[in-house]
Amino acid sequence: MSMMRRMTIDITGIGNAIVDVLVNVKDDFLVENDLTKGAMMLIDEARAAELYGKMPSGIECSGGSAGNTMAGVASFGGKGAYIGKVAEDQLGEVFAHDIRSIGVDFQTKPASGGPSTARCLIAVTPDAQRTMSTYLGACVELGPDDIDEALIKNSKVTYLEGYLWDKPTAKEAFLKAAKVAHDAGQKVSLTLSDSFCVDRHRASFQELVAHHVDILFANESEIISLYQASSFEDAKAAVAKRCEIAVLTRSEQGALILSDGDEVAVPAEPTELVDTTGAGDLYAAGFLHGLTSGKSVAECGRLGAIAAAEIISHFGARPSVSLKELAAKKMD
Amino acid sequence: MSMMRRMTIDITGIGNAIVDVLVNVKDDFLVENDLTKGAMMLIDEARAAELYGKMPSGIECSGGSAGNTMAGVASFGGKGAYIGKVAEDQLGEVFAHDIRSIGVDFQTKPASGGPSTARCLIAVTPDAQRTMSTYLGACVELGPDDIDEALIKNSKVTYLEGYLWDKPTAKEAFLKAAKVAHDAGQKVSLTLSDSFCVDRHRASFQELVAHHVDILFANESEIISLYQASSFEDAKAAVAKRCEIAVLTRSEQGALILSDGDEVAVPAEPTELVDTTGAGDLYAAGFLHGLTSGKSVAECGRLGAIAAAEIISHFGARPSVSLKELAAKKMD
Repeated sequence: MSMMRRMTIDITGIGNAIVDVLVNVKDDFLVENDLTKGAMMLIDEARAAELYGKMPSGIECSGGSAGNTMAGVASFGGKGAYIGKVAEDQLGEVFAHDIRSIGVDFQTKPASGGPSTARCLIAVTPDAQRTMSTYLGACVELGPDDIDEALIKNSKVTYLEGYLWDKPTAKEAFLKAAKVAHDAGQKVSLTLSDSFCVDRHRASFQELVAHHVDILFANESEIISLYQASSFEDAKAAVAKRCEIAVLTRSEQGALILSDGDEVAVPAEPTELVDTTGAGDLYAAGFLHGLTSGKSVAECGRLGAIAAAEIISHFGARPSVSLKELAAKKMD
Repeated sequence: MSMMRRMTIDITGIGNAIVDVLVNVKDDFLVENDLTKGAMMLIDEARAAELYGKMPSGIECSGGSAGNTMAGVASFGGKGAYIGKVAEDQLGEVFAHDIRSIGVDFQTKPASGGPSTARCLIAVTPDAQRTMSTYLGACVELGPDDIDEALIKNSKVTYLEGYLWDKPTAKEAFLKAAKVAHDAGQKVSLTLSDSFCVDRHRASFQELVAHHVDILFANESEIISLYQASSFEDAKAAVAKRCEIAVLTRSEQGALILSDGDEVAVPAEPTELVDTTGAGDLYAAGFLHGLTSGKSVAECGRLGAIAAAEIISHFGARPSVSLKELAAKKMD
């Protein structure tokens, strides 16, 4: 056990540990390769090889939804830890290096002998939208044994990505972590991840939100999908009483935060839009960092908006500047 | 033999096949880690692991001096091929994918069972200078057998990076390629790569330039080092009659091209300076593409300047836009 685990951790993120391959493409590329713009699709190794072969040259960088969130938390100066499964290979080393180098505690044992470290092929179109094709690789080996109970008990918030729900053992790990957190009197937070992910697991997610989640993150299409609502207003009404805090993000229209029967609207931070990859992940980073630092809900929303604006202003899903310094400048 | 090899190739590049790990650091990082700003140092695997462990999170992208040049040639619409050694690993796949995806013919058999694909740890300081620490890995296995004679014979120019001179078998490969090219009546081009590389191999490089090189690329410090000259003027005088074309680049002061007893000065292209990685590589790409397209020496210099300006305006050493389109816009 590292020294860090004996201290209080602000947030522990649990997610699919993924290395991103980012490429710029024209819209034609999506059509020709049967990709749905803005979505995340799961692909197998053969499809990953085929699609990669058709993609232009790219850049590789660490990603994964909760991984990006934890990098954001660390960039704000928060104490974070991460649980996720890489393989013992070069991309696994890259992932581990990058998340540790920013100060996030990452001790999950890498998988060996099985599939390689997960890759997400991200096609960024000229409108800055990202379309993701994920080969989960070693992520499928994340299981309940990877949940470090002492770590979760010491974490003010355990943050889970909905994508984990796609694989049975990761789902078990997810439920175990949520139980350990609650039994220790800590908070559980969930991001719905993606509207297609919600489609795949709607009933389970409804049950989770109603009974196991304190702080929920969802964008407009995800929350509408969750309750099969006819409008954002209806979806909002459906989620309102179901968890302590619901953070509903609406891209350039800002976010609506439902908390204790109150609604707080927080505008988006203006910025130049280059690549939307990681926008939701970084919104969650800012919000949860604010929350674990004792900030008001409105301030948490502002921190989320600042972090999301930074990430969409450049290529890639990890902060390129210190979010702590950026927030200090923006909020003084 | 691929179809491509039966056609005329404009340029075949031979070099160390490397994946770059690019990170932003403060100047303190260079001091603390005993790194010489602007230089390329060779490091072993243990030092690579140690240095990587101290580096902040980065992005990975294909690099290698001649590899960058060939990506530039292809981006201009030139027909290019590349010879270089990767390992059968994930970073080797990334390198092969990236260079092929832009249309460069790359058939060198990857090494297996030995060292991993080469990595260059590139620390970019706030002044946009890059400081490189290279672990050569599988590159040391490049040898004369990797030189595809049919390819070299069909290439108008065979372009060699001076860095190859650092390892005995690569040096043999280098000399074999130069001989095959000349025997077929084709041209041989060399970049001196780095003033420290010139220091390591001064006598050999002088002999090469005098007897085996038709088109030489060197920056100011490299050409001064080659002839241990007291000034740029003296170095220029020393190289003037030794090869057909000498392209002497001087960063923001532009380039001086010595050819047939003439001197042509070409100004640098104004741009915003972000990261100088690849500036020399892309200058060579533009120049050689011009030359193999029948352009005047002045036009070749202009194409080099345009390509170099593009590469230093963003992070990374491969073009982020079509150089063909960029040049058409700039030169109409």
